[in-house]
Amino acid sequence: MKPWKTLARRTVFTHSKYLTVETHTVELPDGRIIPDWPWIITPDYINVIALTEEGKWLCFRQTKYALEGTSLAPVGGYIEPGEDPLETAKRELREETGYEAPEWIHLGSYTVGANRGIATGHLYLAYGAYYVTQPKSDDLEEQELLLLDTTEVEKALAQGEFKALSWAANVALALLYLRRSGKLS
Amino acid sequence: MKPWKTLARRTVFTHSKYLTVETHTVELPDGRIIPDWPWIITPDYINVIALTEEGKWLCFRQTKYALEGTSLAPVGGYIEPGEDPLETAKRELREETGYEAPEWIHLGSYTVGANRGIATGHLYLAYGAYYVTQPKSDDLEEQELLLLDTTEVEKALAQGEFKALSWAANVALALLYLRRSGKLS
Repeated sequence: MKPWKTLARRTVFTHSKYLTVETHTVELPDGRIIPDWPWIITPDYINVIALTEEGKWLCFRQTKYALEGTSLAPVGGYIEPGEDPLETAKRELREETGYEAPEWIHLGSYTVGANRGIATGHLYLAYGAYYVTQPKSDDLEEQELLLLDTTEVEKALAQGEFKALSWAANVALALLYLRRSGKLS
Repeated sequence: MKPWKTLARRTVFTHSKYLTVETHTVELPDGRIIPDWPWIITPDYINVIALTEEGKWLCFRQTKYALEGTSLAPVGGYIEPGEDPLETAKRELREETGYEAPEWIHLGSYTVGANRGIATGHLYLAYGAYYVTQPKSDDLEEQELLLLDTTEVEKALAQGEFKALSWAANVALALLYLRRSGKLS
């Protein structure tokens, strides 16, 4: 299978570091040309779901502009320029929750928009997390830190209480990893 | 926890039915005003991972413009105006694979961008799927239909071979559902 070729790219809207829109001239394998394929650029980010050494899941209950009501959420944050995703993940876990973890499992790095690009999300499980310091989040949203049991997390996930796609993926992939590796009974 | 209030919205870029960009004037619970919060509108969509009555998983190997190389993928498609997401899911499964299914499990509807909106993705498992007709996909991408064992799907998911976020979420949530319901041994 042959990839599509990018023949040209034009910036058609720039907002800030949070959003740029381009249109691409794309050539399909059969020679057809698409002159204005929309392409969205937003910052790459991390999500971290942390399981404490006592077997509790660190989750926020929080508001987000695009979500109705409140949602359960893992830790999340944008990757700063030049920052390694895993370093972002460790920094955000410490800043937002005050926890660190001895074992980090990379659950995959995924493209948000298979057609439009959008961003790459790097998903992690922080295993064996323990409290070290006061959190110092500067996020705009209100949030409350919860310590949930595995059964509570599984039920919440099944009921759609992790309302953002990346958060549901993060928790689902963590549960599958933990089952597969025998780290969850 | 109080939601953010949308005070005004302006369209700042329109491409087509595939992309509109707005900026919103938003009021935070503490009274602060954000004058130009970027907001992205792309079509809502469905993904369907199907498990056949013989216990095989219907997956595509395909190219997508935003993905490197090929990727494994479930069925996917945009929701037409006025169409119910489940109807889209059934239509796309039949069009893309030629299969139908007697049992449909809604694995959740998720907001793609917790900050920017972007779209809602509706994720489904089609259980007990069986072949009825020739597929007639009009997708631009090349794709090959595969019938995979559960162990192959689990391994591919763990290795990041479902490269788009929504696809990984779809498959992970389906695996968790099937385990929970006792439908996978």
